[in-house]
Amino acid sequence: MKLKEKRLSTETLYSGSIVTLEIDQALLPNGDKAKREVVRHPAGVAVAALTSENELLFVRQYRYPMAEIVLEIPAGKIDDPTTQPLENAKRELLEETGAVGYSYVPLGAFYVSPGFTDEIDYLYMCRVDHFESQKLDEDEFVNVERIPLDKAVGMALNNMIPDGKTQTAILKTAMLLQMEK
Amino acid sequence: MKLKEKRLSTETLYSGSIVTLEIDQALLPNGDKAKREVVRHPAGVAVAALTSENELLFVRQYRYPMAEIVLEIPAGKIDDPTTQPLENAKRELLEETGAVGYSYVPLGAFYVSPGFTDEIDYLYMCRVDHFESQKLDEDEFVNVERIPLDKAVGMALNNMIPDGKTQTAILKTAMLLQMEK
Repeated sequence: MKLKEKRLSTETLYSGSIVTLEIDQALLPNGDKAKREVVRHPAGVAVAALTSENELLFVRQYRYPMAEIVLEIPAGKIDDPTTQPLENAKRELLEETGAVGYSYVPLGAFYVSPGFTDEIDYLYMCRVDHFESQKLDEDEFVNVERIPLDKAVGMALNNMIPDGKTQTAILKTAMLLQMEK
Repeated sequence: MKLKEKRLSTETLYSGSIVTLEIDQALLPNGDKAKREVVRHPAGVAVAALTSENELLFVRQYRYPMAEIVLEIPAGKIDDPTTQPLENAKRELLEETGAVGYSYVPLGAFYVSPGFTDEIDYLYMCRVDHFESQKLDEDEFVNVERIPLDKAVGMALNNMIPDGKTQTAILKTAMLLQMEK
C-alpha cells in the first residue's frame, strides 16, 4: 500500500514560546485531500543519571497541562537550535539537579506523539561524577529525588511512573546495564 | 519547595478535530505570573499484540508531522470520551491489523509530553486469537508487519524504533514475559 502524503498548503495559526500550530492541507495516497493539525516543537532532551550507588536522579515538578506534580528524569527543551542535544542534556542535568555527569551513552530518539507533533526527545544515560548547586531558572520549581534503579524499574512496570520518556529511559538503562554484565 | 501552579485565566485559540490550543495565565509558587501554552488532546491507546509465534504486530504509516513513515504498534485516539480505553485498544487493533486479541494486560498510562500537552496514552499487551480482515478508515493507509519480540527488543535498544510509546510497550512486554518465566 502506498503511504506517503504530500503537503499542499500550510497556515501558521499560532507561534508561541514553546509550540507553533500549523494547519496544513495534505494530498493522501488515494488522491483525496485532508486537513492536518501539526504542533511544531523545538525538540527536547532527557537524562537517566546514575549515582555511584546505582540510584537514578529524578525531579518532581508541576506539569500545568496535566494539573499534577509529575516524577520525571531531568529534561528540557532545546532552546538554541544551533546547539547539540548532548550539550543540552548536560546543561539540563546540571540546572535541575546540580549533577555533573560522565560516560554519556545515547538512548536514542523518542517521538512523543507523531500523529500531531514533530517533537523528538533525545534520551541519554550517564554516570554522576559530582554535585554542584542547582541552577534553576527563576520560574522553575523542582524537587530532586534519588531512587535505586531496581526500584525505579519496578515502579515503571507497575504503572507508578506515568511519564513516557522516563519509563523508556529507565527500562533501557536497566536492560543495557544488564547486558554489560 | 512548593511546586503547584494555579490557573488564573484561559483562552481557547483553536479547537480542531484532534487538538485544542489554550493559552493560560498561571500563578507560580513564588507569586509571579507566567504564560502556559497547552495543547489539549483526547487521549490515545496502543497495543503490543503477540502472535502464537511470539511476533509483535506493527504498522508502518506516514506520520505527517514527522514527514516520514514510522514503525509503531497499533494505536489511535479515543474518539468517543464515553468509551473505555480498553474498548478503543481492541477496536484499533482490529481496524489496523485485523487481529482479535485476548488476555489483555494493561501496561499503564503514558504521558507523551507533559510540558505542553495533556495527551495520555493507555498501553496494553495481548495475545492474538485470530485474524479477520483489516477495517481501515477511508483516509487511513497502513502496512502491517510482524517482528519477533526478541528482535523488536534489540531494535528498541539500538534506536531503530523512534516512536516513544512503541519503545516502552516493547520493553515492558519483554520484561513482564521474562518475569513470568
